[in-house]
Amino acid sequence: MVKLIALYKQPKDPKAFDEHYYNVHVPITEKIPGLRKVEITKIVGSPTGKSEYYLLCEMYYDDHQSLKEAMKTDEAKASWKDLMSFAGDLVTMMIGEEVE
Amino acid sequence: MVKLIALYKQPKDPKAFDEHYYNVHVPITEKIPGLRKVEITKIVGSPTGKSEYYLLCEMYYDDHQSLKEAMKTDEAKASWKDLMSFAGDLVTMMIGEEVE
Repeated sequence: MVKLIALYKQPKDPKAFDEHYYNVHVPITEKIPGLRKVEITKIVGSPTGKSEYYLLCEMYYDDHQSLKEAMKTDEAKASWKDLMSFAGDLVTMMIGEEVE
Repeated sequence: MVKLIALYKQPKDPKAFDEHYYNVHVPITEKIPGLRKVEITKIVGSPTGKSEYYLLCEMYYDDHQSLKEAMKTDEAKASWKDLMSFAGDLVTMMIGEEVE
């Protein structure tokens, strides 16, 4: 499968971030057509101590074509707009392919 | 579950990186006691074009205690030593918890 990956740096206010992320952003994002699965990982540190990162979200699509089509939908545009409103300065987006 | 995450930036020589990664590093790493699952994602870009990242590897353990114990083993030390030898300047390590 193909993944759209969002990696977030530490927010200044983790409580406010979490509140918006789980109550607003995830529900908006889960409406995107073609999205098969969402896996969220809370980053809690690194082997050497702290991490500059806070959260990793992996959004699965069947293939690149499905992801491409999903990105054109109003639901994806709403998710993107919301993302930029609360974490535009924290997030790095990646597109990846699962290795067998 | 708990994940040890390795995020690699683009290597100068992707062919040499892949050869070492899949033929040497992954086999060494898979020997680490307590490691339940390895998920590798090849980063192929971003929604806006290229990505500075090349590969994401997620290594699953039962819990923090299992990861902590695993890190003390000779197998983990061998994996870390190998990692530093070919990708010490490319890799960012994180520890994460799956969100239900």
